[in-house]
This record gives sequence, C-alpha cells and structure tokens, in this order.
Amino acid sequence: VTDSPADPRIGDLSEGRILRHILDQLAPSAAVVGPGDDAAVLAAPDGRVVATVDSLVHGPDFRLAWSSAYDLGWKSAAVNLADVAAMGARPTTLLVALAMPDDTRLSFVEGLAGGLRAACDALAPGCAVEGGDLTVSDTLTIVVTALGSLDGREPVERSGVRPGDVIAVAGDLGRAGRGLRVLFDRFRDDTGTPVPPVLADLSPAEAEDLAAQLRPAPPVGLGTVAADAGATALMDISDGLVLDATRMADASRVTIDLDAALDHDMLTGGEDHALLAAFPAGTVPDGFRPIGHALPRAEHAVLIGGRAFTGNGGWDPYRDWDSVGG
Amino acid sequence: VTDSPADPRIGDLSEGRILRHILDQLAPSAAVVGPGDDAAVLAAPDGRVVATVDSLVHGPDFRLAWSSAYDLGWKSAAVNLADVAAMGARPTTLLVALAMPDDTRLSFVEGLAGGLRAACDALAPGCAVEGGDLTVSDTLTIVVTALGSLDGREPVERSGVRPGDVIAVAGDLGRAGRGLRVLFDRFRDDTGTPVPPVLADLSPAEAEDLAAQLRPAPPVGLGTVAADAGATALMDISDGLVLDATRMADASRVTIDLDAALDHDMLTGGEDHALLAAFPAGTVPDGFRPIGHALPRAEHAVLIGGRAFTGNGGWDPYRDWDSVGG
Repeated sequence: VTDSPADPRIGDLSEGRILRHILDQLAPSAAVVGPGDDAAVLAAPDGRVVATVDSLVHGPDFRLAWSSAYDLGWKSAAVNLADVAAMGARPTTLLVALAMPDDTRLSFVEGLAGGLRAACDALAPGCAVEGGDLTVSDTLTIVVTALGSLDGREPVERSGVRPGDVIAVAGDLGRAGRGLRVLFDRFRDDTGTPVPPVLADLSPAEAEDLAAQLRPAPPVGLGTVAADAGATALMDISDGLVLDATRMADASRVTIDLDAALDHDMLTGGEDHALLAAFPAGTVPDGFRPIGHALPRAEHAVLIGGRAFTGNGGWDPYRDWDSVGG
Repeated sequence: VTDSPADPRIGDLSEGRILRHILDQLAPSAAVVGPGDDAAVLAAPDGRVVATVDSLVHGPDFRLAWSSAYDLGWKSAAVNLADVAAMGARPTTLLVALAMPDDTRLSFVEGLAGGLRAACDALAPGCAVEGGDLTVSDTLTIVVTALGSLDGREPVERSGVRPGDVIAVAGDLGRAGRGLRVLFDRFRDDTGTPVPPVLADLSPAEAEDLAAQLRPAPPVGLGTVAADAGATALMDISDGLVLDATRMADASRVTIDLDAALDHDMLTGGEDHALLAAFPAGTVPDGFRPIGHALPRAEHAVLIGGRAFTGNGGWDPYRDWDSVGG
C-alpha cells in the first residue's frame, strides 16, 4: 500500500479529522443534542424508545472483494432499520461504532458514511446518524444501534399469533440468499479467495439477487402499516423463513402452516430482511402477501403445505461460516 | 486448546444456547419489551432518550493477559455509563454487541456478562442489559450502547462554561493512566508480550491504579447531582484532563485555568472516566472538588496556574497504540 496524500490512511489522521469527514457525508442532525458531546439526546415522543443493535464483521458477514464501502454502510443501516420496523415502529436514529484497521483509507470511511445516509434516506426518511465511536482494530467491524419510535402504537411482538391468523410477508424471500450463493459459487478464485463480481457475467435475475444481498431494501415503512392494520405478530426474517417462522410459532405456541408453493430458496434463504407478520383473517394490509396460516399448536412448529419441513431451516453464522477471509 | 465438555467453545454452540447462558448472568428485564424480540422497547419517561456507544477492541483497548472476562464486561459497561452521566442523565439500559473468535470459551462469555451486570449494579443501580448481538470475529470486540433518562432535566452539554465559573471534577485523576503504565512497564516479557499481573508484586497504591485501569468506577450517580446543582457544562474525562478540558474550553469559547498543584499524571492520564464540570461560583455540590476556573477566551484554551501547557495532552488511540497484541 502506497502513501496517498489525497486519500490518507486513517492511522495517519486524528480521530477528530476522520469524524469531520464522516459528518460531512451525513444528514444534518435533527436531535436535541447531536454528535459531538458525550452522548446524543433524542426525542422519544411517546415516552418509549425502540432499540436494537447488529454487527457486520469482516469475514463471517462480508468480504471486501464483494462489498464496497457504500454497500457496507447501506447494509449495516438496512438490517437495523428492519429490526425497528419489525416492532411496528418508525426508525429515528442510528449510532455507529466503527472499528477499522489503521490502513483503512479515508475514502472508504466516507463511502461507508455515504451508504449509511443513503439507506436511511431511501428506507426510513428522517432517520439519521446521531452518534458513534471510532476505534482501530485488526478486523473491520461495523456495529449499528438503531432507535425508533412507536408514536403511540403498541409494540408488535413475535409472540401474539393466534390460530386462524393469516401469515403474510412483505419484501423479498430467497433473493439475498441466492445472491450470496452467486458470490460463493462464481466469484472466488481457485484457492477460494473472493474476487470482485463482474456484473456483465450475470443475468438480470442474478444481478437483482446480488443487489438484495449487498444492498438489501427491506420494507421498513410497512412495519407501522402492519401495526396499524392490527398485526398480532411481526418480525424480521433474517435467518431464513422456516427458521424465523419457527421462532414466531414457538413464541406464540401455535403451528404455522406455510404454502406448499414456496420454493426452497424462499423457505431457507438467509438475510431476506423481509417482514413476517400475522393478521386476523381478512385484515392483511396492502404490501403484505399471504403465505400461510396459523393452526393450534401441534407436533411441529412449522409445516409446509401441511407436512413437516425436513431441510436445514436457515443460516447460523456460528455453524455456516466458511472461515475464509478476503 | 483442548476440548472441554464442561466449558465448550462458542463455535460449537448455537447462538440461542450462548444467549441463554448470557441471560442467566444478567438482571431480569425491566423493559417494556426485553431481550428476545427483534428490538427492545424501553421507557423514556420524559419523552427524550440519551444514547451513546463505545467499543473495546482486543489489541488497542485491552490485552487478554491483563484483563479477565469479568474486567472487560465491567469496563465496557462503566465507560458507557460515564458518558450517559456526563449529560446529566441516569443510565437505564445497555445493549451489548459481542464479536468473538469461535474458540472463545463459554465461561469467558459468562464472565463478561457477569462483569456487565456487576458494573450496572454498582455504578448505576436499575440499569440493565436489554438487548444485544452475537457474532463471530477474528478480533474480540465488545460494543456497548448505553441509554439514559434525563428525568425532565435539561441535558448538560460541554459548551456552556462561562467566564468566572468554577471548574470541578468528581472521580479519580491519573490513576487509570498510571495503572496502564504499570501493565506496560512491569507485566510484559522480554519480547513485549503481556503477561498476567502478579498482585503480590504491587504496592497498595499500584494495586489501586491497576484496579482503576481494569475496573474503572466512574462517579455515575454524580451526573444528575451536577445537573441539579446547575452545572453549566459537564463531560467525561476519557482522554486526559488537559485534552478534555481543551475540548470543553473550545466548545464554550472560554479559557480554562487549572490549578498548578495538579501533577502530570492528573493532567494527562487517559481513561480517568471522571466527570469534569463547570459551576457558577459558590454552587459546587458535594462530590465535586474545584480544580480551576474559567476565564474569558484568551490565546490558549487551557492554562495551568496561568501558564500555557506544553506537554502531550492526552491519549489518542490512533497515535499511541503500540500495535502489540496479547
């Protein structure tokens, strides 16, 4: 790596200077107290705050040959915005902890900040980064905390499904998992090392799958729509439909019977960040499509067209990581 | 590393099982919605929430030969509790993102959770871990988000110092920095590799310095005391008194003149996590001790007994990290 005065290594810059470059990429603060003090102070208009945290770690969660800085900023925002939406809430604020090798380029940090902002603007307008932390690490790590407001709504937990409810989904199923498979199958060299994806080599469908993996666009605005429609349960599908539907069914003590028409990718693809919801029959709002229904609890938590599911239900990073970097 | 059925590697366990062991160490949830859903829902009684995030990264921030899992849990909570206190607020909630090598032992995770709980119980009773994230990483990383309530108070920013205000501090100055020096000077082998500290080799004062470094006990409860007493400015001293007083002086457009009696360790030691405050003359509350006063802005942001300070003002992890692991 050569020196580049126009694009310095962050290890050669002060924390304050890196921070100024990040803040230049972000939306202006809308907080009571924004970035720059010991902590931010944020509005929580109905006297409650929704809060969640999620991490993207170089290696198990992404490869730098596959994801740009912008992609990583976008995705780290999007997955957290989806978790706030999955409570029936409106995301208001992100806090971002970045741990980066000291040879990380300033342009990378700026790209990441740009991706964070773009995801907020596209998926949850009004949500902004209002605080964070910078530190050096051997492993590039992006930890985003998202806060949200229920605006007077009751939170929609995953435990409220009742027998007879329609199970419905908003957002893509299976695409992001297929996109990951495209990367693993087609964009590694003979040693297994990731290489940059060549978009010209992809079919339009494959390119969409790849985009769903690298820059997911969960239907964040439909979280409050589900709550307002009277959803009895709501959750983010992050580890595959069958695995997450099992969690919803177990928490609600019901059995969920999913349509036999759902294909294997839809049932098991990880990182969908679609919203899985349950609604009383006849109340499914626009934006959600029915994919099954709830039954009194039986032997299996999840059925597919009335039959037990026998495959691997989803993605567990501890089990499935291939331990290859890049 | 040998297999140990009694203390398995986290790489051999499901995320759910690790989580159950962590939750067993924590205080029962006091949240509207606690751990286990997509996001937590927390009370924000006065319609605002204070939020901050800070990271501890293996290498630049700690060495495993020096810090136990319990120490790391304690410290990662304490430094964030101090940031909430530094706004004049009461910490209510922690969210904890853990990124760990897959050969990390379950007992380590349990120790870390125990330290998180102990620090909350000791420093901010009523504050509890209500959410988090687990992922695998080559670099052990602990990222804590702390939330707090102002309970109707106005936030105390760092920018409100007025000429004539008394500058005061609560908590230890210089101890944690000396404790770090004890570790670097006395507990590394000939190759510079950290070795476990031997408490019997330390004087009582050194042992206290070491404890301030490994398990800091910031005066978290004095944050609201400062706010109630009418503090015009308040901040956490994390990077050394001179450097942080410079930030306060610059934000407030004043010059801060510190007592000439403060020794070099007190002026420059990092990681104090003491509270630096400004109060109108005659209003310094119990628990704070005067260490200087504010003047109209002059050439220098900070003076020591009326003279410019000429040393290295504090700790910058990007500049000062020695890049040695362990």
